Parts: sequence; C-alpha cells; structure tokens
Amino acid sequence: MSRLVMKFGGTSVATPDRIKRAAKRVAREVANGHDVIVIVSAMAGKTNELVGWVDQISPMYDAREYDAVVSSGENVTAGLMALTLQEMDIPARSWQGWQVPLKTNGAHGAARIEDIPTKNLDEKFGEGMKVAVIAGFQGISPEGRITTLGRGGSDTTAVAFAAAFEAVRCDIYTDVDGVYTTDPRITAKARKLDRIAFEEMLELASLGAKVLQTRSVELAMRYGVKLRVLSSFEEYDETAGTLVCAEDEIMESNVVNGVAYSRDEAKMTLLGVEDRPGIAAAIFGPLSEAGVNVDMIVQNISEGGKTDMTFSCPVSEVARAKQAIEAAHEAGNFEYGELVVDDNVSKVSVVGIGMRSHAGVAAKMFKALQNEGINIRVITTSEIKISVLIDRKYMELAVQALHDAFELEKAR
Amino acid sequence: MSRLVMKFGGTSVATPDRIKRAAKRVAREVANGHDVIVIVSAMAGKTNELVGWVDQISPMYDAREYDAVVSSGENVTAGLMALTLQEMDIPARSWQGWQVPLKTNGAHGAARIEDIPTKNLDEKFGEGMKVAVIAGFQGISPEGRITTLGRGGSDTTAVAFAAAFEAVRCDIYTDVDGVYTTDPRITAKARKLDRIAFEEMLELASLGAKVLQTRSVELAMRYGVKLRVLSSFEEYDETAGTLVCAEDEIMESNVVNGVAYSRDEAKMTLLGVEDRPGIAAAIFGPLSEAGVNVDMIVQNISEGGKTDMTFSCPVSEVARAKQAIEAAHEAGNFEYGELVVDDNVSKVSVVGIGMRSHAGVAAKMFKALQNEGINIRVITTSEIKISVLIDRKYMELAVQALHDAFELEKAR
Repeated sequence: MSRLVMKFGGTSVATPDRIKRAAKRVAREVANGHDVIVIVSAMAGKTNELVGWVDQISPMYDAREYDAVVSSGENVTAGLMALTLQEMDIPARSWQGWQVPLKTNGAHGAARIEDIPTKNLDEKFGEGMKVAVIAGFQGISPEGRITTLGRGGSDTTAVAFAAAFEAVRCDIYTDVDGVYTTDPRITAKARKLDRIAFEEMLELASLGAKVLQTRSVELAMRYGVKLRVLSSFEEYDETAGTLVCAEDEIMESNVVNGVAYSRDEAKMTLLGVEDRPGIAAAIFGPLSEAGVNVDMIVQNISEGGKTDMTFSCPVSEVARAKQAIEAAHEAGNFEYGELVVDDNVSKVSVVGIGMRSHAGVAAKMFKALQNEGINIRVITTSEIKISVLIDRKYMELAVQALHDAFELEKAR
Repeated sequence: MSRLVMKFGGTSVATPDRIKRAAKRVAREVANGHDVIVIVSAMAGKTNELVGWVDQISPMYDAREYDAVVSSGENVTAGLMALTLQEMDIPARSWQGWQVPLKTNGAHGAARIEDIPTKNLDEKFGEGMKVAVIAGFQGISPEGRITTLGRGGSDTTAVAFAAAFEAVRCDIYTDVDGVYTTDPRITAKARKLDRIAFEEMLELASLGAKVLQTRSVELAMRYGVKLRVLSSFEEYDETAGTLVCAEDEIMESNVVNGVAYSRDEAKMTLLGVEDRPGIAAAIFGPLSEAGVNVDMIVQNISEGGKTDMTFSCPVSEVARAKQAIEAAHEAGNFEYGELVVDDNVSKVSVVGIGMRSHAGVAAKMFKALQNEGINIRVITTSEIKISVLIDRKYMELAVQALHDAFELEKAR
C-alpha cells in the first residue's frame, strides 16, 4: 500500500470546522488508495499562549519543562483530527511523539530527530488503520522526556516521517498556495511555480520566502522526499501547489526561477584593516559569539598592507555588531581605521539552478538594475544565486525590474 | 525523608499568579523538611474547552482519543508549576502520567489505577529533587495509550500517590476551607470540622457536600491515607482545613457530625403491587437499565397479597422512571394499582459515627422536625446516617432545626 504524508499547519486546524475541512482532504487521499500519515500543528495561537505563560513564569526557563508545556497543543489537535476522521468512518488514531516513538537527541527546544522506528505504525496499518495522526513538533529524548524540534518543527516532522515510511510524497498544507517567483505583493506578475529544485527552495527560504522551514527542505533533499506545498483554503486539483523536488525531475527549467529580497539589511565596512593571515577570524569570531547573523562578506584587494572589509547583517543587530567590534579592537585583537555603517540597504537576489550552465546571468542582472538607475553597493555570488545590496528605497523597483528582465511571468 | 502529597485544583492554578501562590505553599513544606509530590489539575476552564471541542466534533467519541485530548490540560499546569518552583530555587521537575508511569486498566474515560511503581521518582528524590510535580487525572493503559480517571480524578491521583509513597499526609487544596457541619448558606451557625471520619465524609460527599470525590475518600480509607482538605486562598496555619482520617484518630466525637441535604428529590409510590418473591428485582431492574439513580427504597407490610413500594430519585429522572415502569408493566413483568409521583420533596440526613453507640438519635431527629410542624414522608436509616424525605418548602427549616437540635455549632 502506498504511503502519503500530509501536514497541516496551525491556521489549517485553527477550529473544529477547519479540522473538518482538512480531514476531507485526508479522506480524498484515502479514497485514492493511500495509507496516510497526517502531521498536525497546534491550533493557531495555542502555542503562543503556552509560550506566553512560560515566559511570564520563568524568563530563563528549564528547556525540558518548556518542551513538556508547549508540546501539548499538538496533542490536542492530533486527538481532534483522529476523532474527526472516525466520524467520517475512516479508521484513524492519534500518536503523540513518545508513542511512535519519534526519538531525538537531548537538545531540548531544538532537538534533532535520530530515529523513527516504523514498527508500531506498520502494525496498525496492517490491522486496517487507514490514517495515523501524528502530533508534530515533538519527540522523546534518550532520558524519556518530551523534546520539541524548534521553530517550524512540524514541517521537519512531516519530512522525517515521509523518509522513514518511504512515502510517495509529503504534502504540506499551509495558508499560501505555493512558491512564487517573487513576492506577489511587490509585483502582480509574480507566478506560482509548478516545480522548484530543493537547492533553489533553500536559497529562496533563507532569503525570506518563508513557506517552508529550511531544515525540512534540507532533510527532504538528503532523503529524496518529494515535497508539495499547497493551500488548505483553495480547491484541490492535481496540479495544485508547488512541488519541491530533485533537480533531475524538473525539465526545461528557466535559468532564473525566483527573485528574493530581504528588506532590513545593514552594510558595515571596516576601512583600513591590517591585511594579515587570521584577520577575518579575528573580526568574525567575536561577531559570531555576540550572536550577530553575518550574511554577505566582501574583502577588497589590499593596498599598502591595508584592506577594507565589508559585511552585512540585519538592521536589528547593528548595535550588537558595533559593540563586538569595538570590544575586540580595544582588546588589541586587530587594528582598523574607521567603521562605516549604512543601515539603509536591502538585499535582492536572483536564484536558479540553470545558472550553473548559463553564462551572462550576472551581466543581465546588473544591466537591468542600471537601466533603472539603481546603484549596486555590494555583490556576492554562489553557484545558483547572485545577490546585491542596494539602497532600500529602490528595493521594490529592483525586484520588479529583475522579474521583468528574466521574464519570470512566463511558465517554463 | 518524609513524603508529603499536595494537590491543587483548577481554581488554585487558574493563572500563572495563582500557580505562584500555590508554589509558595509547596516551598513552605519543603522548608519543613518534606520531599513533596504535587498533583495538579488543569487550569480552571481548560478541560471544559477541550471537552467542548470533542463534543462539537464527535458526540459519540472514541474514548481513547477523548483521553488523549482532555489530559493535555494537566500536562501544561505540571510544567508551569515545575518552572515556578525552579524560579524559587527548589529542585523540581514535572511528570506526565505515562512517565511515572501511573498504570491503569483500559477503561478509557473512567480508568482505575492498577499500580504506581515508585522507582523513577525515588531515583530522582535520591539525586536531590525536592518536588515531583505530577499531571493529575491521567495514566497509561496496558496498550500504551493515555487514560483518564473520570470526574475529580486528580483527587484520586493524589490519594493513590500518597498510598504508593507512604506519605505522611495528602493535602487537598481547593476553593473551600474545609468540611462544614452543614451548608453555611443555609445556616450561619455551620461550623468547620477539624476532623471527620472517612465513613462520615463518604456519607456527606454522596449527600451533596461536594468537597472531595467519593472515590478518593474510599481509596484513602482503604490505604489509611490521612487526607486534609484546605483552602488555597486563605492564610495557612497548622489547624487549617479539615482532616479526614480513621475513626480511631478522632477523640470525643459528637454523636452527629453533619446535616446533609439533597434539594431536588422525587418520591414515587407503586400502590397495590403484588407481593411475591422477585417483585423488587422486577421493578428495580428496568429502572437501573434506564439509568435511573434510585436512592431510598421503602416497602410497606403486605395486606391481602398486595404491598406498596416507595422509592426516591432525582426530579430530573422522574420521566424516565415512569416510562421504565410502564414499559415493564405492559410487558407483563408485574402488576400494580397506581403510580403516585410527588416531585416536590427534599432529603435531609444526619450523619455521625457516634450513632453506632448512642441510642435516641432518631427520636431526637423526629422530635426536632415535629417541633417545626414538618411532616416526614419517608424514613431510611443506616449505621451512621438517618435520612428523611420532607416537603421541599421545609428543607432549609429542617436543616436549621436539626443543626440546632444536635448543637453542631459547638466544637466537640
């Protein structure tokens, strides 16, 4: 019997009525001949309520107790979903993380999945159960305590089950209807992609297209799990949503498949840094320790033993970054002339696996920005992505211009 | 190290602030040198919210899924209580039913406790843990599924832990400050009892003084667990609350210790019933099957092969009782002349273990009622209780008169 994993996020199970709508989608897949594993999040708002209580009681909480508390929202939804399916005469039961068991390490609050034995569920499927409803986001530690997987952990739960049970696909039901070429709020020409490669999805996700948790996409890529993102709130058809899959399952890809952006970036430049081995470590070590999420790093050529070092980070972390650099400087770790901060920039990127075999993408990108009179402050490139920092006021214009230039409104 | 069990009901843990107040009471007992086992209910209102969702989805629900859903409220409180205690620098951790494990039978929704192995908690107490916080109301079935213990199950959980861990006492914190000689709303002379025997508590509880679940008192009696009922909302001192204990721990008891009542009773009389062996079974079998809670039963002497049979039940069950009797009559199970219903009566009872060795309690009771001009409709007696049915309009007057007659306002 073919297995299918279906995951429903918090807004898709926010009320008993919505749980019923989700259950109807499950029933359709059972009728299609699948044994289904359903992963559910907590009802929208419930996890925040629980986290709020914990914060109110204990700002420096014991992560083991935090996990015991916040995991309870998913348990409620799992039971309610199983009851809803039973009402529709579908043999179903719920499983909490420890019952499966979904085994994790002991890193409470951000645990990693170590094993999902298939024995217990297989046995029940063998006895005629058609749907196993799993409380997402949670597992059990080697010490027998409840763990949670961290933000977006239910996506990761879903992919891990799809891998363990060799599911034909993992459908992630959410409140958007798929992955778009760019943010539809910025250009109405944004087009839903039918398919996207894992690598592209990873670049788009980490760049701000927050549809799937990065970790779940990495896991899907490693185990070859076909992921489909689709909406709980729209009519279903076979081509609904976006399939995230291996590159070789995508024919005739466009060279560029998406334009991503990150609005609130800051550019920090250390002028006149001494150019010696170990200087990068001396600068970025303290930044990392201070919890600054450094993104782009650019080092210019050296002149007279001095160089300029530029990096970007979120605007919200600028104060912390300055403090860390000045402290390291005062401690005598390194010398520099001046620290120049521009907290008025945005990042815009074009992403596509086709870039690997096509030259001229960078040139086309720079030309498009030039045509709009947009000055580029910093450039970085990877195998399937080119990113630039530009003044924030041009961000929307840049996204629109690049979407037009690469003709992303046209299906490949 | 002496063990103490403390149980906090839903209103005592309704908010993070109230959990903090409860935790302070726990801290005091830790400072007194106890290792403490705390049993918590769900925050007030939470279980009803969960039950409401289940009812909305599935009126004829699968009790296994019901249990998985409704048990989650206690898990939340257990974690929050453990965090609160940790904030007060008290080594504490939470345990869900399956983690203890609290083993029950498989009767979901009304499971019976079968075993509480002490190994896991003992180990942690041995390592320096001072407080084990237990999610009340729940356990694990032989099949590894979550069970709940039924209404008031957290009281039962508390007593079972006190028995298993040989606790010096089981303190039940609730929203009343103890057990009273009668309902203080009916007479201001009602007095809080310092001590009450298990047997008396059982009669008072089942008669409507709803402080402790009957089952928990039975369990405490069987295992000799000293139970103390006291308020979460009043200043603590050594004599706070009421101690429910074995008879031999109560010196100089009054003959009567309490006046209980049940307002909405109905009296049903079958006139002219054929008097033959098996007639009682023929009448009360169908009533039991129809779910009628028959309370008092009185059969008058026989005359000419006919007798009168009177019984009482809650007013709300009169229609069902009539229907059951008429159906059984039509089916030819028994003959009777007439069915007379009086749904305008109340039950008033005096309770006291001292009755066993004192004559004259009944006479004193009847005299007190006569002095007020109250007619007695039905009388039943047990070893430690005398109950009468009277017209409902006299109920308050009867309670007041009996409280005065037995001088219950005076401490024994």
